[in-house]
Amino acid sequence: MENKAIFMHGTNDMIWKEIPVPEIGEEDVLIKVEAVGICGSDMHYYQHGKIGGFIVDGDFILGHEAAGKVVEVGAKVKDLKVGDRVAMEPGVTCGKCEFCVTGKYNLCPDVEFFATPPYHGVFANYVKHPASKCFKLPEHVSSIEGALVEPLNVGLHAANQGNVKLGDTVVVFGTGCIGLCSLLASKAMGASQIIVVDILQNRLDKAKELGATHVINAKNEDVVAKVMELTNNLGAEVVIETAGSEITLKQTVDVLKPAGTIVSVGMTPKDSIEFNFMKLQSKEGTIKSVFRYRNLYPTGINAIASGSIKIADIVSHKFDFEKTKEAFDYVAENPGEVVKAVIVMQ
Amino acid sequence: MENKAIFMHGTNDMIWKEIPVPEIGEEDVLIKVEAVGICGSDMHYYQHGKIGGFIVDGDFILGHEAAGKVVEVGAKVKDLKVGDRVAMEPGVTCGKCEFCVTGKYNLCPDVEFFATPPYHGVFANYVKHPASKCFKLPEHVSSIEGALVEPLNVGLHAANQGNVKLGDTVVVFGTGCIGLCSLLASKAMGASQIIVVDILQNRLDKAKELGATHVINAKNEDVVAKVMELTNNLGAEVVIETAGSEITLKQTVDVLKPAGTIVSVGMTPKDSIEFNFMKLQSKEGTIKSVFRYRNLYPTGINAIASGSIKIADIVSHKFDFEKTKEAFDYVAENPGEVVKAVIVMQ
Amino acid sequence: MENKAIFMHGTNDMIWKEIPVPEIGEEDVLIKVEAVGICGSDMHYYQHGKIGGFIVDGDFILGHEAAGKVVEVGAKVKDLKVGDRVAMEPGVTCGKCEFCVTGKYNLCPDVEFFATPPYHGVFANYVKHPASKCFKLPEHVSSIEGALVEPLNVGLHAANQGNVKLGDTVVVFGTGCIGLCSLLASKAMGASQIIVVDILQNRLDKAKELGATHVINAKNEDVVAKVMELTNNLGAEVVIETAGSEITLKQTVDVLKPAGTIVSVGMTPKDSIEFNFMKLQSKEGTIKSVFRYRNLYPTGINAIASGSIKIADIVSHKFDFEKTKEAFDYVAENPGEVVKAVIVMQ
Amino acid sequence: MENKAIFMHGTNDMIWKEIPVPEIGEEDVLIKVEAVGICGSDMHYYQHGKIGGFIVDGDFILGHEAAGKVVEVGAKVKDLKVGDRVAMEPGVTCGKCEFCVTGKYNLCPDVEFFATPPYHGVFANYVKHPASKCFKLPEHVSSIEGALVEPLNVGLHAANQGNVKLGDTVVVFGTGCIGLCSLLASKAMGASQIIVVDILQNRLDKAKELGATHVINAKNEDVVAKVMELTNNLGAEVVIETAGSEITLKQTVDVLKPAGTIVSVGMTPKDSIEFNFMKLQSKEGTIKSVFRYRNLYPTGINAIASGSIKIADIVSHKFDFEKTKEAFDYVAENPGEVVKAVIVMQ
Repeated sequence: MENKAIFMHGTNDMIWKEIPVPEIGEEDVLIKVEAVGICGSDMHYYQHGKIGGFIVDGDFILGHEAAGKVVEVGAKVKDLKVGDRVAMEPGVTCGKCEFCVTGKYNLCPDVEFFATPPYHGVFANYVKHPASKCFKLPEHVSSIEGALVEPLNVGLHAANQGNVKLGDTVVVFGTGCIGLCSLLASKAMGASQIIVVDILQNRLDKAKELGATHVINAKNEDVVAKVMELTNNLGAEVVIETAGSEITLKQTVDVLKPAGTIVSVGMTPKDSIEFNFMKLQSKEGTIKSVFRYRNLYPTGINAIASGSIKIADIVSHKFDFEKTKEAFDYVAENPGEVVKAVIVMQ
Repeated sequence: MENKAIFMHGTNDMIWKEIPVPEIGEEDVLIKVEAVGICGSDMHYYQHGKIGGFIVDGDFILGHEAAGKVVEVGAKVKDLKVGDRVAMEPGVTCGKCEFCVTGKYNLCPDVEFFATPPYHGVFANYVKHPASKCFKLPEHVSSIEGALVEPLNVGLHAANQGNVKLGDTVVVFGTGCIGLCSLLASKAMGASQIIVVDILQNRLDKAKELGATHVINAKNEDVVAKVMELTNNLGAEVVIETAGSEITLKQTVDVLKPAGTIVSVGMTPKDSIEFNFMKLQSKEGTIKSVFRYRNLYPTGINAIASGSIKIADIVSHKFDFEKTKEAFDYVAENPGEVVKAVIVMQ
Repeated sequence: MENKAIFMHGTNDMIWKEIPVPEIGEEDVLIKVEAVGICGSDMHYYQHGKIGGFIVDGDFILGHEAAGKVVEVGAKVKDLKVGDRVAMEPGVTCGKCEFCVTGKYNLCPDVEFFATPPYHGVFANYVKHPASKCFKLPEHVSSIEGALVEPLNVGLHAANQGNVKLGDTVVVFGTGCIGLCSLLASKAMGASQIIVVDILQNRLDKAKELGATHVINAKNEDVVAKVMELTNNLGAEVVIETAGSEITLKQTVDVLKPAGTIVSVGMTPKDSIEFNFMKLQSKEGTIKSVFRYRNLYPTGINAIASGSIKIADIVSHKFDFEKTKEAFDYVAENPGEVVKAVIVMQ
Repeated sequence: MENKAIFMHGTNDMIWKEIPVPEIGEEDVLIKVEAVGICGSDMHYYQHGKIGGFIVDGDFILGHEAAGKVVEVGAKVKDLKVGDRVAMEPGVTCGKCEFCVTGKYNLCPDVEFFATPPYHGVFANYVKHPASKCFKLPEHVSSIEGALVEPLNVGLHAANQGNVKLGDTVVVFGTGCIGLCSLLASKAMGASQIIVVDILQNRLDKAKELGATHVINAKNEDVVAKVMELTNNLGAEVVIETAGSEITLKQTVDVLKPAGTIVSVGMTPKDSIEFNFMKLQSKEGTIKSVFRYRNLYPTGINAIASGSIKIADIVSHKFDFEKTKEAFDYVAENPGEVVKAVIVMQ
């Protein structure tokens, strides 16, 4: 068993190395990786070497959106067997801190998350992972779909934080992968009107294809006026902000219905963003925020398996594992074109 | 303008009368009725003359699932105009009591509900109704669909009480109209596995057609064993009981997943039902109950308009207004065959 | 029966007028006013003639925190009788709009609120009010306490929005009447650590007296460092911002515990306030806001009656009705000294 | 270091043994036990040798309500040090199953719970325990109070399940330890009216002393009529059933306010209990149940430390560790008299 892995080697460079097949513990499984999505954070590390305080130091394996096949199981593993295909939840948490025991493990301060320094990611033939963080895929759900449960979960968590309900109107700002996943999640939870806002027309076309009932190109239209027109001047019950820009964050409260909820997902470009709290109060609005996700792998897999969410539709580009560096370079050069790129291992 | 109405005239009998066109108040609208569903409670009054303490006294107009066209609006009505088609919420509540002001108006002790004695129902050409209880139908939603928002709402409320979420497993006991509406509601809210239980095979076939992922005929199969097999021995997150029988109510806790919720909807045949509270505690289960519904007309109409719920699919029989008595008699004689009968006015 | 009322007559001036005793409708009661609190909004109208878009036009009666005695009841009033003392909820809402029927009547667009132009307030001997908005006071709850249920409710609503629970740590920014009411509410809901922040030492002393476990004078101490020291470096589960200043609003997220809730209550001095959304996301914090309150009169009265909340302790000054103008002028000149002034009618 | 432990040795018998001082793991602490409460379940095992399917096999150490002093800490323990006094949460859960990761660890199927066969309890000088399940006591909270956090938590969980809020009326059926803890919890969460029902007058007197606003001796008074009289004929928002008898469980729905919540805590004497679901539906009531508790040690300790809950007031009898068998025999013979017995180690 040979284990090839590709490491980022300084910014905008990668090298292949052969690494040992990991030895698994009693509660781990060994996974032969089959599909890995390229996330915006992977791209950011690749191009800049860091995200905030997380700094890549030395050669580093990227990738955290992954699925694969179980090839070995630890002595105490009960629910998985060799041959099962699984989606891997990338964050391994302590299970003991206040946040873990109250079900908010995404806030565990001791999380070890794939491809967040100093923890390597999954661009390798074999990785080990705790069995409790591996979720079995039904036969008719592909490994690519399994890999994409990870970004989908961010959208599911955003829609959950916003408490999207059957019949609701939802505005989604931004059509990156997370924006589109928020759209898919909102639709699956029953939103009847989903308005997507961006300035990239090809992405808005994609949103329409994925189920947006209306799209607004902010280059050509007055966003607030258009949303009000579409909502009988009431605004939207839920507003999901994934673009992370100052202008969109400011607009969230303008398109919010009284008693509605804004969900802040997109990372802002700077610490201080101007916001109209007076308007928020006059509508008695709520702002929820999103840090990764929690307890959503079963939900995501069930929703894909039942056909509620067609996550494969967001994939715009596939590359072979051998072409991983080429894939990263392609995404770097064509950010607007690539909705989602996935690396596939044979 | 002639206003013909059909009254029940003792049990199992009806007579036609011409009644005055109602005079509307400032905040009312006058509706030309276009479609009325026949509910189980209508049938019960027709056959037995009473439901519990509600006793039909004298000639009485049945019918409370209705939609029609606005033909006159009161002086203070702002949101509706002549020509609008609307679904009518049958319960008019005080707007002032503790339950009304906290949003639980379905518990208002002073509610006046169509076809609940002493308040007449809507089997007439014209009825008046407060504008605030009339909900505009989009052009592509038919008046039959509008009439069926009423029973749909009971299903929506049941699913809400159970907190059905994307990816959940739901068991629905009973395939009467409310059982099927609970199925449609659960599906629209994203449940990925919906198991429907009954003893009537034609109804189970209908449930399958409407989106049940599995059906169990309790005549032929062990319900609890089958649900456990289908749920990896865990049970269902939500169990909606619409049959109202002692045996199904007892089974709810057997098929419940720990931390799950039972929703008691079906009226039981007697006051005292045996239930296993010890098992409920060991699973830390919750029992919610349903009394009508609240605040769900917009949700129901949006869900129908967006295609999330195809409520017209539950209609098995249509009758002209002139054939109302024949319709009641047909339903009385063929309870198993008729899923939902609707009276249509030309 | 003579009905004297005092009107503001341009800014910083008042005149007495004799006005007719109101004629009550079937569902109203006539109240002989016994106590009225002076609110910050009353002071603002008195000094500036307007609040935002609400502009005083002509002579205008202020006052909306009131209690009094029922002296006449309308024909349909069932729950009140002559002689009952009641607290009056100042906002009369439509009972029919989407917000009213869902229990969020504080967002009713058609609310008529005492002393919010063009609706007069209650500085008069007699006022009429819907019986459903009058809440009976137990014998041992005074009319002054009854009047103060109104501001207390803002504090109760703030603590509710923050979901204050037994054992929580709460930080309250600001020691105005609403800050102190938020403190009292948090304490009554079981918060075990309540940290109050301001720059006025006499107010902080009052907060300590009312139950704050710690006070921080932001003039002398580093607020964030101190809260972190007091909370084992975790921050507070709930942060209630009543000061409305840019600096305190910014600090809310610094003293927030991960997964905690900020409640924005204080009106900000300008539309755009800089806020660190990135930090909010990293803690997955929530921001709730407060617009008046809803459904809290029974809660407030019960809490006062049971001794859970000693609202009378916030009263620092009492004036006779005849001295109403003097009272307003005194408060205007001594804003730091006056915690709460109440006008008492004999 | 000598480690004496007392084992039940068949029913109604105990023997002393010297056992090894446990060796701790990296994440454990070694505790010198200082106080242990005697629980009803301890008594049941002592007298009957089993509870349901949990059967005592061989000599067995009872006791699970415990606090003590840390005398050794494992290598990886960060938050505790030698000399700290702690309350011990008796259930050690897997941290990985679906219930653990969603914060409902009380439903973990692999829990190891002190004094639930086959896991020994804490009637010993020294026990080891995971540090994450040991909660530090402030200096002014005694070890006896620390031991009683355990039963208190059941009351806190019951009040949480019932969503007891400031100003609520709560009815508590039963005045055993859990009934009284439910009373204390409800009071600390702000309930303004707490009505306690039992047939033992000395226990009702105790309830009154602990803060019940009314007590009803069901031997002498009509429980339902009395509650209705005390609640303006509305019933109680929350009804907590801790007696576990058929008659009290049936009465819960009679004294429930529409939209209210029944909390089923007391174990019933048999599997099938008759219950009026029709009445539950007509009030749209909810039934929640309680299985142990979760995430409440910090809450309980904070509430005791702040003075919100005076848990020591429930202690009626104290015994030295040497007199453990005598204590069990005394409780067995005087069940009505003993509210709570605690074993104290010197």
